[in-house]
Amino acid sequence: MTLSTQDNSESHPSRPRVIIIGAGFGGLYAARTLRNTNADVLLIDRHNYHTFTPLLYQVATSGLEPEQIAYPVRGIFHDSPNIQFLLGSVTEIDTHNRRVFVEAEDGVREESYDALIVAGGSVTNTFGNADLERHAFGLKDLDDAVGLRHHILRLFERAAWEEDRALRQALLTIVVVGGGPTGLETAGAMLELYRDVLRKDYHSLGDVQARVILVEATDRLLAPYPKGLQASALEQLQSLGVEVMLGSAVDQVADDHITLKDGTLIPTHTLIWAAGVKASPLATMLNVPLARGGRVPVQPSLEVVGLDNVYVIGDMAHLEDAHGQPYPMLAPVAQQGGILAARNILRKYAGQAQQHFRYNDRGTMATIGRDRAVAWVFNRIPLTGFLAWAAWLGLHLITLIGVRNRLGVFLNWAWNYLTYDRSVRVILGRETVPARERALERETTEV
Amino acid sequence: MTLSTQDNSESHPSRPRVIIIGAGFGGLYAARTLRNTNADVLLIDRHNYHTFTPLLYQVATSGLEPEQIAYPVRGIFHDSPNIQFLLGSVTEIDTHNRRVFVEAEDGVREESYDALIVAGGSVTNTFGNADLERHAFGLKDLDDAVGLRHHILRLFERAAWEEDRALRQALLTIVVVGGGPTGLETAGAMLELYRDVLRKDYHSLGDVQARVILVEATDRLLAPYPKGLQASALEQLQSLGVEVMLGSAVDQVADDHITLKDGTLIPTHTLIWAAGVKASPLATMLNVPLARGGRVPVQPSLEVVGLDNVYVIGDMAHLEDAHGQPYPMLAPVAQQGGILAARNILRKYAGQAQQHFRYNDRGTMATIGRDRAVAWVFNRIPLTGFLAWAAWLGLHLITLIGVRNRLGVFLNWAWNYLTYDRSVRVILGRETVPARERALERETTEV
Repeated sequence: MTLSTQDNSESHPSRPRVIIIGAGFGGLYAARTLRNTNADVLLIDRHNYHTFTPLLYQVATSGLEPEQIAYPVRGIFHDSPNIQFLLGSVTEIDTHNRRVFVEAEDGVREESYDALIVAGGSVTNTFGNADLERHAFGLKDLDDAVGLRHHILRLFERAAWEEDRALRQALLTIVVVGGGPTGLETAGAMLELYRDVLRKDYHSLGDVQARVILVEATDRLLAPYPKGLQASALEQLQSLGVEVMLGSAVDQVADDHITLKDGTLIPTHTLIWAAGVKASPLATMLNVPLARGGRVPVQPSLEVVGLDNVYVIGDMAHLEDAHGQPYPMLAPVAQQGGILAARNILRKYAGQAQQHFRYNDRGTMATIGRDRAVAWVFNRIPLTGFLAWAAWLGLHLITLIGVRNRLGVFLNWAWNYLTYDRSVRVILGRETVPARERALERETTEV
Repeated sequence: MTLSTQDNSESHPSRPRVIIIGAGFGGLYAARTLRNTNADVLLIDRHNYHTFTPLLYQVATSGLEPEQIAYPVRGIFHDSPNIQFLLGSVTEIDTHNRRVFVEAEDGVREESYDALIVAGGSVTNTFGNADLERHAFGLKDLDDAVGLRHHILRLFERAAWEEDRALRQALLTIVVVGGGPTGLETAGAMLELYRDVLRKDYHSLGDVQARVILVEATDRLLAPYPKGLQASALEQLQSLGVEVMLGSAVDQVADDHITLKDGTLIPTHTLIWAAGVKASPLATMLNVPLARGGRVPVQPSLEVVGLDNVYVIGDMAHLEDAHGQPYPMLAPVAQQGGILAARNILRKYAGQAQQHFRYNDRGTMATIGRDRAVAWVFNRIPLTGFLAWAAWLGLHLITLIGVRNRLGVFLNWAWNYLTYDRSVRVILGRETVPARERALERETTEV
């Protein structure tokens, strides 16, 4: 155990030490804002890279290499001498003594802060359902995405040699739960992966076609969108071949089937859970009462209600907008929160007043497949089909971090678009035996 | 257990069933040769992709994404209805009854053949040294390469926070054993990874510089090359900054140091073993006496001595050339062997005579780093420096399978060359705690 003690007897040190937990969109933008300031920044993450989460579903569907949507954190800050990086998992936050404990490569480290920004994002919410926890695939980080890619490809390998027609159909049935952007994007991309690529790879499937079923509990897709766009999204998904089941909820989940609340049984080996997220369990370490979804109530300055010098941003923060609605768990909210929290820390140490969070909402979009998407630009202009799709591509290319990643993603997109190919369909990892261990692994891996 | 029985009572069936074990260079070229012939081909591999092994060291040094040097086998043969693919590990070869047992995704399968091509390649040879087996990194497949990438990056993360200067130096010392092409290429690429990228990423290393040490037991590098090229390779490596220790052999290996035969102790946490390979353990399943390196003695037709209708090719085969030397374990030997074995099987079933293997040797080359390489073209024309390097780049781009992989590799090479960057330096996988499990995992994973 290595100790790194800092003198924090002074309440306004000339060089405040700021710890940022999490190098997602929120933490990254906070650190960027503090670059070349008089703050000493320690950025902590359990990965050595920032993940461009909006494209995770394309990694899961063999469209992109995982490294293309990951950017090494040290690469982003290698010209910033005031920003340090620590690879490790935070195990304890001691807000009384302003310390953070981190399980790092060489054991547990204790790090002191003058100000803390907690930006741990969100995790898949299975609402305490143990079967769901055991059998469902989330899509929250690169390991989820690569694991899902391997799972799907393995099922096809198994189906290719399976003589029982019904079992073959079950192996080739993919159920996606959740009618939000992640659910739509994943369902559409899975269907295209099958239709454009895997169908040609596997000759021995006979007359069995893969099925992609999208299950949504309410009676509409993309809840916050206007009705016209919701209808368009439904129509685009269905014309692609995705079976959309609105007003349906999952009741029971097993290894080889699920049942819906209305009693329908669907034989399937793949349940992708895009129906809920909750704040990172880091929230519980702050020892404050939590809001819905395990989020941490913050003041408009993004400082935690009841704690000094602790800011929570992004998916983890609960703050209501002018209409009394909590800000959504979206990358732009986290980015803008990161910038504000960093600025408010600088203001505090400069003796200036805290500023309030105001979300600059530029709209939302979701892609469904080739030439298919919906967009609600500035929450005013509806786009559908090719135009929305082109806007989505352009925006994601621009916001991706790193020129090389942009070039690589562009190359893959152009290749996939022109050739109807998905070349990343390889199963890495030592074992070839089916991943029954996945369930076991989950049990031994903490969230 | 699924049975797939084939009628092999007839010695010359009209459609012979050919099983090919291994989708490396040898197996792939054999299958390609049998494409659209009257043979029914079953290609078996424990991975669903073909690996372009000459570029493994660039994956290990964060220069390329692993998926860029892997190509899905089914993608190669999706237009070839006479070629089937089975993902699985061969557990038994029964040459009496012409059967192969495969541990596949859905259990053990039994597959019958009329002719068999065994193309399992080679594995790292640690000569029965348990410490070496436990601590050394091989570089024979993508999992090796990705594992080594993660290991190196983790050591740097640990070193960045290590206060003990000596330990920091040990963490940043990489020992490569073996003065063949793989050793040279890995040592050169590791040094460039440090000098061009990691040195800038890690500000807190103080005055400690990473060391890359190449250990070779004989008094020269690149044994089969002419003296001038050997001297040039040595000079190019040394001017890059690699410490070359000729006439040195590893004596003992531990977690945090190695000792050489002359007593020298080198504190290091990374030993890369490029000093020996042996034939895949599949060789022992044939129950014939094996030659040096565990290779299977074959006739000039590549049929195994003492077995009917069983061909062994590539690294696994022992066949002597006109000078009494066994053919080297090189990709072109395997490719040409694969083509000949496939043709000889077709000839046999067409009642024609077997042809003899003759290796068309176009020379060898090894790259050392940016603008640095040696090449011995057609074993006549020596090239060094930029020319050899450019020849190496061009040849590898051309021979890589798949246009998308070529474009992706070219993009990465151009990017890395122009920017001195290595963007793939990300640590994937769930755990952040150091991989002590690696040793444990090795114990439970069969070769």
